[in-house]
Amino acid sequence: MDELKIAIAGLGTVGGGTVTLLHRNARLLETRAGRPLRLVAAAALEKPADLPLEGAAFFGDARAMAREADYDVLVELIGGASGVALDVVTEALSRGRHVVTANKAMVAHHGLALAGKAEAAGVTFAFEPAVAGGIPVIKSLREGLAANTLSQVYGILNGTCNYILTTMRETGREFADVLAEAQSLGYAEADPSFDIDGIDTAHKLAILTSLAFGTAVDFSKVHVEGIRRVSAFDIRSAEELGYRIKLLGIARRTETGIEQRVHPCMVPINSSIGCVDGVFNAVVAEGDFVGRTVFEGRGAGAMPTASAVVADILDIATGRRTPSFGVPASALAPLVPASLDDHRGAFYIRLMVLDRPGVFAGIAAALRDEEVSMESVLQRGRAPGETVPVVMTVHDTQERSMMKALDRIRAIQEVVEPPHMIRIEAF
Amino acid sequence: MDELKIAIAGLGTVGGGTVTLLHRNARLLETRAGRPLRLVAAAALEKPADLPLEGAAFFGDARAMAREADYDVLVELIGGASGVALDVVTEALSRGRHVVTANKAMVAHHGLALAGKAEAAGVTFAFEPAVAGGIPVIKSLREGLAANTLSQVYGILNGTCNYILTTMRETGREFADVLAEAQSLGYAEADPSFDIDGIDTAHKLAILTSLAFGTAVDFSKVHVEGIRRVSAFDIRSAEELGYRIKLLGIARRTETGIEQRVHPCMVPINSSIGCVDGVFNAVVAEGDFVGRTVFEGRGAGAMPTASAVVADILDIATGRRTPSFGVPASALAPLVPASLDDHRGAFYIRLMVLDRPGVFAGIAAALRDEEVSMESVLQRGRAPGETVPVVMTVHDTQERSMMKALDRIRAIQEVVEPPHMIRIEAF
Repeated sequence: MDELKIAIAGLGTVGGGTVTLLHRNARLLETRAGRPLRLVAAAALEKPADLPLEGAAFFGDARAMAREADYDVLVELIGGASGVALDVVTEALSRGRHVVTANKAMVAHHGLALAGKAEAAGVTFAFEPAVAGGIPVIKSLREGLAANTLSQVYGILNGTCNYILTTMRETGREFADVLAEAQSLGYAEADPSFDIDGIDTAHKLAILTSLAFGTAVDFSKVHVEGIRRVSAFDIRSAEELGYRIKLLGIARRTETGIEQRVHPCMVPINSSIGCVDGVFNAVVAEGDFVGRTVFEGRGAGAMPTASAVVADILDIATGRRTPSFGVPASALAPLVPASLDDHRGAFYIRLMVLDRPGVFAGIAAALRDEEVSMESVLQRGRAPGETVPVVMTVHDTQERSMMKALDRIRAIQEVVEPPHMIRIEAF
Repeated sequence: MDELKIAIAGLGTVGGGTVTLLHRNARLLETRAGRPLRLVAAAALEKPADLPLEGAAFFGDARAMAREADYDVLVELIGGASGVALDVVTEALSRGRHVVTANKAMVAHHGLALAGKAEAAGVTFAFEPAVAGGIPVIKSLREGLAANTLSQVYGILNGTCNYILTTMRETGREFADVLAEAQSLGYAEADPSFDIDGIDTAHKLAILTSLAFGTAVDFSKVHVEGIRRVSAFDIRSAEELGYRIKLLGIARRTETGIEQRVHPCMVPINSSIGCVDGVFNAVVAEGDFVGRTVFEGRGAGAMPTASAVVADILDIATGRRTPSFGVPASALAPLVPASLDDHRGAFYIRLMVLDRPGVFAGIAAALRDEEVSMESVLQRGRAPGETVPVVMTVHDTQERSMMKALDRIRAIQEVVEPPHMIRIEAF
């Protein structure tokens, strides 16, 4: 068969990894594809000196490459929900060319439209590298588990957050300190907000939700909280209660609709997800026939992400075609969101209180008045007249009741800081 | 598009699960396949009363069904390396029909020939359900990780053994006792040899090896040991040393060739595979770009296996085609086996010795003479003149040297039982 002609837009970390992979494993890829994969064009602001780009036309302008180069597949590795990334992808699809992208922000915001455009043109719009790096989780949800009605999908989807939380646990250090170190090591961006405020996880979750439930991607319906307020004290308390704190993305089918939420979570130490540490990602899917299935691996980085980029290219090279979200874009139902108020679960609460007689009685009354049932309460240390931390866990209750109880607690005079709540998932 | 016509040979556990899945999730499957999936024929010795077989022709003779029924896909769920199973599969392929099978023994013994036959006929020969039940590990190796040169693939591939070893650890009971209970609960067969002697694991490993390394399936080159000799004492000792005992299948690329081995293994308690308990399976693949990737889920049972059967059917229904072992059968290289003698690793050794002065000196000398370096040695209890267990671990050494040292130890008069050795994998 003819060679497959590849154009890469963006030669940063993942772009460089992809060029290296195509070069280093060329023979293997040709055997698996049944045809040569050839890099014919690459675009970046500056041409990197250290990549094997021989034979590929170089473009300083990705839009010009998308418009003018002669390629079968455009690989978009620029990033950003719109701008150049969206322009080059739109151009390639308009020209009837296949697209592979690692761009979760773009898929979360424009995935439905782009999938529809690709289907109309009879080409592939693929994004395995956009979620969980090298782990083939998109393919697994879309094809491997396709016989199942899924009840939930959740996971650790951001390596930066998991690295920070793991390091906080292992060293006892505080968030700001570990973040600064992660930035100096290159594990966190100079502007870390996308990662630590949960937005990156939310982008990925919105994509998984669509694949899992056959609903249109709807990023706007994701409830998002990040990890800035998680303290070393919370992590130590979690450990003593038998939990680990992870930033999770959770999508669940409920009676009233589909829940999509991203927030720090206490999970049992011995759960599949509780032992996933450092930069590793893990995704858990639960289906009516397959039961619980877990996928774990490196969720980011040049080489694992390149592995996923080239997996998508191999699908295209061999003619394996699947609609981007498992079913035709027109068959995706609008997402009916469940209100987080209706969510039921257990909670951990950390309070800073003045150590005075009667404080506990006030807190207990606030919980009772909202019919929230306390599981445990623990004052850490004694310091009459001073501020001490108090840790509570409550049994399964409605989020709405919990929030009202926290409002009442906040109003108690001896409670000197806003209460900090972390949801507990039993998994 | 036209409906896809399915014939199922074998209506036991997995056959029943598959019929149930096709019935229960029919609408979902039609959306994902883009066409109806219709069960047109089923064969079993007796027609089960409790399955939704309306509209399907029933055959008491699977060979007759394979020969006479009008189907697009034959699903073989009879089992056994040859006999009826092989006959119906051969017949279907000869008629130019697709085949899906859960039959690891048949794929391990005849997979290469059947894949070649399918390719010649331009049809699919698929076996996702043959390995690790519902976990989409075949698809992941063949497609999801296809951009990688893999260095090793290993896993817990037999739920019965993992259930027995987990229960032994949790209850402290002995192998024979737990096996008998597993049999009465239906978790182990009346004739348990295929499972507990490692043959089932070896069948699955031979298939994974082929997919991972692009080599022809070669079951005859798998080194196989089962779990009959693992004692409650070994499991307790492992725990104290920081290990869990698992029956693993391990395929590894070495300098001299490909290692394929199935045996009980001590793995670190905190490794991805160390925490996989009960009937769960897990497969780990290591690639040059993706790094370590872990797949975990239910490895057996009617419903998880049916999930994999129907995943393969959906690939066929949507026209997604991949050669059975990732590359055309003719491109699979013969497997060059590495000799287990050349394997390097750490070992655990359990001895029963007469508690007499000088015994340790003799054992230490035997190890020294073969240049095996002891890591730890522990006599459990004192009983002068009586038999006591001694547990040793040794540092990484060649298997050949270890075996010679064990021969020397066996010859020591105070060593009253043949030494029991379990390999340690650091993973």
